[in-house]
Amino acid sequence: MHNKYLVTDEWRIIEDRWRPELNQGSESIFSIGNGFMGQRANFEETYSGQSLQGSYLGGVYYPDKTRVGWWKNGYPEYFAKVLNSVNWIGLRLKIDGVEIDLAQQKVLDFYRELNMKEGFLFRKFRVELAEGKELEAEVTRFISMKRKEVGALRYQFKLIGFSAEVEITPYLDFDVINHDSNYEEKFWEGLEENVATQKAVILARTKKLDFQAAAAMRYELYQSDNNPITLYPEELCRDKYAENSFSFKAEADQNYSLYKYAAICTSFHYPKDQLMQKADELASLARRDGFDQLLNEQKEDWAARWEQSDISIDGDAEAQQGIRFNIFHLTQTYTGEDARLNIGPKGFTGEKYGGSTYWDTEAYCLPFYMASAGKEVARNLLIYRYHHLDKAIENATKLGFTNGAALYPMVTMNGEECHNEWEITFEEIHRNGAIAFAIFNYIRYFGDEAYLAEYGLEVLIGIARFWAQRFNWSEAKQQYVMLGVTGPNEYENNVNNNWYTNYLAKWCLEYAAEAYAKVIAMDPSALERINKKTKFKADQELKQWETISSNVYLPSSDELGVVLQQEGYLDKEQRIADELPLSERPINQHWSWDRILRSCFIKQADVLQGFYFFEDHFSKEELERNFDFYEPRTVHESSLSPCVHVVQAAYLDKMDKAYEMYLRTSRLDLDDYNREVHEGLHITSMAGTWMSVVEGFGGMRVRDGKLYFNPKLPKQWQKLSFKINFRNAVLKIELSSESHKIQKISGESVEVIVHGESIKL
Amino acid sequence: MHNKYLVTDEWRIIEDRWRPELNQGSESIFSIGNGFMGQRANFEETYSGQSLQGSYLGGVYYPDKTRVGWWKNGYPEYFAKVLNSVNWIGLRLKIDGVEIDLAQQKVLDFYRELNMKEGFLFRKFRVELAEGKELEAEVTRFISMKRKEVGALRYQFKLIGFSAEVEITPYLDFDVINHDSNYEEKFWEGLEENVATQKAVILARTKKLDFQAAAAMRYELYQSDNNPITLYPEELCRDKYAENSFSFKAEADQNYSLYKYAAICTSFHYPKDQLMQKADELASLARRDGFDQLLNEQKEDWAARWEQSDISIDGDAEAQQGIRFNIFHLTQTYTGEDARLNIGPKGFTGEKYGGSTYWDTEAYCLPFYMASAGKEVARNLLIYRYHHLDKAIENATKLGFTNGAALYPMVTMNGEECHNEWEITFEEIHRNGAIAFAIFNYIRYFGDEAYLAEYGLEVLIGIARFWAQRFNWSEAKQQYVMLGVTGPNEYENNVNNNWYTNYLAKWCLEYAAEAYAKVIAMDPSALERINKKTKFKADQELKQWETISSNVYLPSSDELGVVLQQEGYLDKEQRIADELPLSERPINQHWSWDRILRSCFIKQADVLQGFYFFEDHFSKEELERNFDFYEPRTVHESSLSPCVHVVQAAYLDKMDKAYEMYLRTSRLDLDDYNREVHEGLHITSMAGTWMSVVEGFGGMRVRDGKLYFNPKLPKQWQKLSFKINFRNAVLKIELSSESHKIQKISGESVEVIVHGESIKL
Repeated sequence: MHNKYLVTDEWRIIEDRWRPELNQGSESIFSIGNGFMGQRANFEETYSGQSLQGSYLGGVYYPDKTRVGWWKNGYPEYFAKVLNSVNWIGLRLKIDGVEIDLAQQKVLDFYRELNMKEGFLFRKFRVELAEGKELEAEVTRFISMKRKEVGALRYQFKLIGFSAEVEITPYLDFDVINHDSNYEEKFWEGLEENVATQKAVILARTKKLDFQAAAAMRYELYQSDNNPITLYPEELCRDKYAENSFSFKAEADQNYSLYKYAAICTSFHYPKDQLMQKADELASLARRDGFDQLLNEQKEDWAARWEQSDISIDGDAEAQQGIRFNIFHLTQTYTGEDARLNIGPKGFTGEKYGGSTYWDTEAYCLPFYMASAGKEVARNLLIYRYHHLDKAIENATKLGFTNGAALYPMVTMNGEECHNEWEITFEEIHRNGAIAFAIFNYIRYFGDEAYLAEYGLEVLIGIARFWAQRFNWSEAKQQYVMLGVTGPNEYENNVNNNWYTNYLAKWCLEYAAEAYAKVIAMDPSALERINKKTKFKADQELKQWETISSNVYLPSSDELGVVLQQEGYLDKEQRIADELPLSERPINQHWSWDRILRSCFIKQADVLQGFYFFEDHFSKEELERNFDFYEPRTVHESSLSPCVHVVQAAYLDKMDKAYEMYLRTSRLDLDDYNREVHEGLHITSMAGTWMSVVEGFGGMRVRDGKLYFNPKLPKQWQKLSFKINFRNAVLKIELSSESHKIQKISGESVEVIVHGESIKL
Repeated sequence: MHNKYLVTDEWRIIEDRWRPELNQGSESIFSIGNGFMGQRANFEETYSGQSLQGSYLGGVYYPDKTRVGWWKNGYPEYFAKVLNSVNWIGLRLKIDGVEIDLAQQKVLDFYRELNMKEGFLFRKFRVELAEGKELEAEVTRFISMKRKEVGALRYQFKLIGFSAEVEITPYLDFDVINHDSNYEEKFWEGLEENVATQKAVILARTKKLDFQAAAAMRYELYQSDNNPITLYPEELCRDKYAENSFSFKAEADQNYSLYKYAAICTSFHYPKDQLMQKADELASLARRDGFDQLLNEQKEDWAARWEQSDISIDGDAEAQQGIRFNIFHLTQTYTGEDARLNIGPKGFTGEKYGGSTYWDTEAYCLPFYMASAGKEVARNLLIYRYHHLDKAIENATKLGFTNGAALYPMVTMNGEECHNEWEITFEEIHRNGAIAFAIFNYIRYFGDEAYLAEYGLEVLIGIARFWAQRFNWSEAKQQYVMLGVTGPNEYENNVNNNWYTNYLAKWCLEYAAEAYAKVIAMDPSALERINKKTKFKADQELKQWETISSNVYLPSSDELGVVLQQEGYLDKEQRIADELPLSERPINQHWSWDRILRSCFIKQADVLQGFYFFEDHFSKEELERNFDFYEPRTVHESSLSPCVHVVQAAYLDKMDKAYEMYLRTSRLDLDDYNREVHEGLHITSMAGTWMSVVEGFGGMRVRDGKLYFNPKLPKQWQKLSFKINFRNAVLKIELSSESHKIQKISGESVEVIVHGESIKL
């Protein structure tokens, strides 16, 4: 069913011929970015075929007025959309008056490559303009990892066997649309356009929130790559747009290279009145330093990143390509310098899901960034939520909670809730627990307990207060219950006593109390500040947390020896996913919503998500009973589902199951399993694949400040090697079925236990 | 909080001065209709103030593309909107070039009256045009109950103390909008316009579904009501619009009367190619017969209707006015000649809720129409659903049900589901039971068992098949359970084992089997036809129904001696509505949706709805325990809530509670309790008021073909009298605390039992 069309290669993604019907998907796959901005693999020259134009700026969004069928009290006013932004790559190319457009000319050759090792996009094509007249072009493009505002491209072309009048029009264009606009309006309005010879700079603002962005360009034309051609362009600008246009006589079989340098500065990073000047300076500087230097910087930067984050898999070239593809995109989506940025489910590769932050970050992405990007980057992911604490308190207050209770939003840009389906917005509240768990997870990994005093405890108090109010006492059960929630399995809505949510909430109450005790011991002055700021009534609140957490109702079945996904789960008709005819799968495309809700089928790990977070709380036998009960009922219709199951299946020595699940996640986008890659990549689920490899097959765990490995490789794999940050060291791990080798590349000493054997590095 | 501004009068609704801020509400209250069409009390002359223009045609609707935030599988493609249709009342009036517009001139006097006894709307006003120049006008308007396509108006005016050039422009206008259009489009497009001297006819079609409607007009001008004035009008027409315009010198202090006759014919009733001609003929005929004859017909028609349906309440003028207002509107909303029509929640008085059919009809309206309009009218309400059976089967099939299972829609025009909130659309399935109950209720009332063979059984089979599949066997409970439903109390969604739904579904299975047995006995040939048509496997299906219905899980609490609204209801924090601060009520305007869902508060009768339908299945003590438990938890935030509680409170001798509840329903619209009368009237809940009076205070019940009364009047009421159809007779009932008097006005003999004493009439 899927589209397997890319060439397998260790370090590159390669498309080796022209497939216009898959082009929009390739635009996603070959996207480039640098954590601050991103660009889909749209063509520089005009393309009138199917395409999703996408250029995105981190932190810049549009609060699109909410659209609902029926309004429910408490819904947010807007849904934050990642903004399609300035087209900075654009240039029009005409040969004897004929505009180059791959949808119009006959494409004779086409080759596209994402060089993941060095961080650039390359494209080569040959088109027929008329009988015996062909154009050949090679385009290299990247967004600089080092110069966060800068992108550059080289557009090299040759007329084969004929000479012609060539007209080139490099431009900047803010007059773009978002396909997901709720009310079909454009989000940008123009403020200023300046154009001069071989340069332009334009400034635009968003119609709401007044985000401003300036884009500047420079360009140059060379013959044979070293003879600059003097140009006398016509300049033109209009609202939101600026161009230069020039013509020259191109000789036959000669190489011409247009270099285009762009810089985009936004009010997210710069004062508004400096945007145009700053962008212009940066573009000018990029031109001065030149394409080759910029590209060298890029290669160096990526080399350093791979040094810390690479995974190599010997014996399985597709898996190798798949995991590097994921690491590449995760790395260029979030680089962690700015704690105001986060990881949208589609990163900078599409509009869908608004580029906003979900619990994906804490539950699925954090482990990758901890191990691959290190402490500061991971810490910024936590601080992001710290900065949103006040909004989370506002959000909870709006829903009727009091006393500084915090409910983090399901979907957010700036801390405000954007989601508008009541069963998710108001009820999928386990997200709050994932945010607390991330603090725990980070401290467990890096040993950075000081984080609690600095930021963590405040967040934990807000979250614990929420849970303390969200539980209610059941006279009937004589226990605390939690009514009306949606668990990670979104194929159940408004259920009572979802085990995962109850367990996680109970743990949050305990962990917040524990964190409080730690801060008492570690940093009394911080405690005083936090008490004052949060108006914390220690005696009373800690006691209340203890009263509740020690008496939470957790549904289970003694008969089956499993916990229950929610109260009443066993009233459902019990079936397993294998019984479902293929014609009915995925059920979310074939069954009405109520039928899905009534069924026992599970979208993604729910009970098992709890066992994943809290593996150490349960025996292997308990996990196995629950895995054997729930996994067969799981339809894995979320891209976030398989990874948790890989980790657990490998741990439980169910290697066939582990590998089956791994295949579902490893090349989800490369092979377009869900037929939706044209909308963008599944960035956050890529981190799940990393988790599958490292925690699943690598068997990596952290306990008591030590790193444990219990590797179990798929039989197809001869060797698994990876590099990770741990505590204050960088390690290189090489694992195979017969042997293992752990090296410390840099940093402080750490203890690693492989198959029970301790190694001090 | 409400707007009490109308003059109390037994037979009339009177507004005695100009209140522009309340005008849109009055437009609803003073609406007129005839079961085939309706018209809000908009002004004939131009009005530039706040107004909701509304002219509606029975059966003519627009399938407006569904608007949702997030699409769920199974949602319908459209929401049917009642169409704002041709403005047939319109005329522009200019005095010396100044257009009369009550929003522009100073209004010196204003009086509006809805004459409910005779079925017309009257309005009188005086405006100042300039110092010393006043215009006085009196307008009488009605839609003919006898001539279903015809409306007529007399617009009489006088210039006080001055003469002037008067220009009058009577027109027809299809260029109207629906305020509730999802995508802000107009729904009509023009087909043809013909205009001539003193007449016009225009034809329009709906952009989707191609409903066509032709409107024709005639008009005449008289001086002093008997001197016709010869007119030489200018004719004008454009797309969707036609007018005549004429001027004359009006003398001071003389009465001038413009008579306007309109006829509207739609493709719902006539072939498309005859619409213009037919409308023209009917308008011409109306003019020929004249305003006075038409108005006389109207008075006679209403006299006959009141003869069968009037209620008089001695000692409470407001209650008297309120109940007649309700009977009047119910009668002019649905007259029962056409089984394709039904009763929208707002009838012909506004756009909201799309004028579609809800379960309101079966659960709340049927008793009124049975008693007040008689068997044929009530029967047509049932046949309406019979005609939709195939669509109900399609609907269930779409949701995954098989074997001819039928799920009637929550909201419909033509049998197709229009609603698009999953928790209602897919889950508020108890509506299916109400449709079966209506069949039972009708047969109980009229003894018309032949209805089963003719129409009823097929519907019951479809419904029973649905329930048989919708229950599922719970291994855990060893009983049949029903998961994921929404009961009548919409402040709970997606609950398991809602007692009302389970009980009703169980009853449906039993009643369908009983009905089947009756048809076997009564009409074997009909049975053969039905078996064949429905492919009924009698042995197997009847046995399955019996297996299920005899083992349905019905949640209850032994400790409290009550049934449970749903499984787990007692896990909620138990509070009563009286504890809620006024500042938080209604909770649906102050609480977020999840908070409402988690709370124990009940929107409208749910368990008690079941006790209302099946009063005879339970002891008075059982009812009382459940009433005492649930009523205090009920916030009555649906206009359909109080009536059931009135009936039960009166039965349980809780007369204070009964009267308190009655006051909430009796003048809901007249006194605009919910501040929403500007959107239209609560037509279906008006039937609940009738139920409160007749079944509540009158204590009327039907058992074994006999009529029972156990009257308990509020202490404010000296006497309650009403007329009803029962079986084949019309009865007049007079009840007071001391005495009662029952008379048969016409028809066959019946047995009536009052306070246990049998009376044969």
